[in-house]
Amino acid sequence: MEQKSSVKSFGGTQGVYSHASKTLSCDMKFAVYTPEGKGPFPVLYWLSGLTCTEENFITKAGAQRVAAELGLVIVAPDTSPRGEGVPDDPEGAYDFGLGAGFYLNATEEPWSKHYKMYDYITQELPALLVDMELPVDGTRAGIFGHSMGGHGAMTIHLKNPDKFKTCSAFSPIVAPSQVPWGKKAFSNYLGSDETKWSDYDATALVAKQPSKAEILIDQGTADNFLAEQLKPELFANAAAGSGQPYALRMQEGYDHSYYFIATFIEDHLRWHAERL
Amino acid sequence: MEQKSSVKSFGGTQGVYSHASKTLSCDMKFAVYTPEGKGPFPVLYWLSGLTCTEENFITKAGAQRVAAELGLVIVAPDTSPRGEGVPDDPEGAYDFGLGAGFYLNATEEPWSKHYKMYDYITQELPALLVDMELPVDGTRAGIFGHSMGGHGAMTIHLKNPDKFKTCSAFSPIVAPSQVPWGKKAFSNYLGSDETKWSDYDATALVAKQPSKAEILIDQGTADNFLAEQLKPELFANAAAGSGQPYALRMQEGYDHSYYFIATFIEDHLRWHAERL
Repeated sequence: MEQKSSVKSFGGTQGVYSHASKTLSCDMKFAVYTPEGKGPFPVLYWLSGLTCTEENFITKAGAQRVAAELGLVIVAPDTSPRGEGVPDDPEGAYDFGLGAGFYLNATEEPWSKHYKMYDYITQELPALLVDMELPVDGTRAGIFGHSMGGHGAMTIHLKNPDKFKTCSAFSPIVAPSQVPWGKKAFSNYLGSDETKWSDYDATALVAKQPSKAEILIDQGTADNFLAEQLKPELFANAAAGSGQPYALRMQEGYDHSYYFIATFIEDHLRWHAERL
Repeated sequence: MEQKSSVKSFGGTQGVYSHASKTLSCDMKFAVYTPEGKGPFPVLYWLSGLTCTEENFITKAGAQRVAAELGLVIVAPDTSPRGEGVPDDPEGAYDFGLGAGFYLNATEEPWSKHYKMYDYITQELPALLVDMELPVDGTRAGIFGHSMGGHGAMTIHLKNPDKFKTCSAFSPIVAPSQVPWGKKAFSNYLGSDETKWSDYDATALVAKQPSKAEILIDQGTADNFLAEQLKPELFANAAAGSGQPYALRMQEGYDHSYYFIATFIEDHLRWHAERL
């Protein structure tokens, strides 16, 4: 474990760490914001979207101000394995491979050796926080994210509602099995048998195993990806059918960017803090 | 004038514009945040530091939230002329040429054709806002900035206290004539006659023409550039000697980054709004 940087922010510390991940068989970076004080603090895992690294959220979302006030630790991992030997999209596309791990465990070659982001987020990363002796109360953990990371947060919560107790999302890919981004990623990472895709599809999951915790979703109406890739109504319909509590808030005029996230991040942080 | 982007942020609009600058003889970009509502609003000019463009402040500082609340327009220009034919540091160094216009009017070849950032900020840019019919009350204008931009803000305020009525700075270069960054820039842009440098040196200016308005400076104690390049005590001593009202706040443990700016941006915006 190597600390790459440590910067004071709103009285607390914004750190970035690098470590050799056993799960992903590569070096990985992740960011941790720790408020001032002894804690232990509840912890929120932030999962970023396509093309992002551990940097985007910590530089653009403006979360540290509110995390400092509420006493929340926020962990922001990278979005895929990286480095020499990690395969990428053959054409270098932005929506698959590097920067596009989709928070699943790949089963197909050549992806299955490194692309195990589901295990990394749910097992290795929480254990790392314990090893690092961060002032975190791991029993009070929530998860949230953006776009591909909203997909990750919702699927991880639905599969682990006792470990990741609260869940919210900005502009999430709610039904990857039914949209181009998800079909491309899942057919490569998981193979052509679509019955195996449902285990990483929030809309499919919520239909058969709703959690008892409300899921909060904010979605901008001016988001260029809304109609083709995001389709939050698919999740809403499935959630309504299975009794999953949820709130889908359509935010008039907002797009898919971090300007949208920054506008509503305070709402989300307060919402998680009240529940953790 | 071309609008490059327009994104909703905290109810208002974060825009980026491009235009052919007559002053700089090149195309220039600048960012404008406009709160919701009819205004007219007071306007703050933000001047960024070395290596920055119009993007850094609007993505990293978290200013939109507070500007929306207070009703402030914030204009953030690029930090130098750009584009084909604009000369750069012969070795491509980060601290001179592109991204390092130092908010002055160069008098020496080959810089004097394009490097006229002082006239651009003080004349062309305010006139553009009028032409654009933005909801701005140009009689209520302030200026602030970071590092090289703090230098720009302080010198522009001291030379134009009736036009840029309020002034604050984060980690400013307060005495460019006395530090390596400034000596390199000034000797190239203004020539070797150091008597001509004082017109763009806040410490020299404040000794002979203090303004009546308090100048607010925040400086992190963990800033790597503090001892060699920034030296805020030089300005403080000169200001004390000439009767310039000022507040120099040394912020324990903070560095030179946007994490520092983000932590105290709300303070600065409220401080300007109270005075405009």
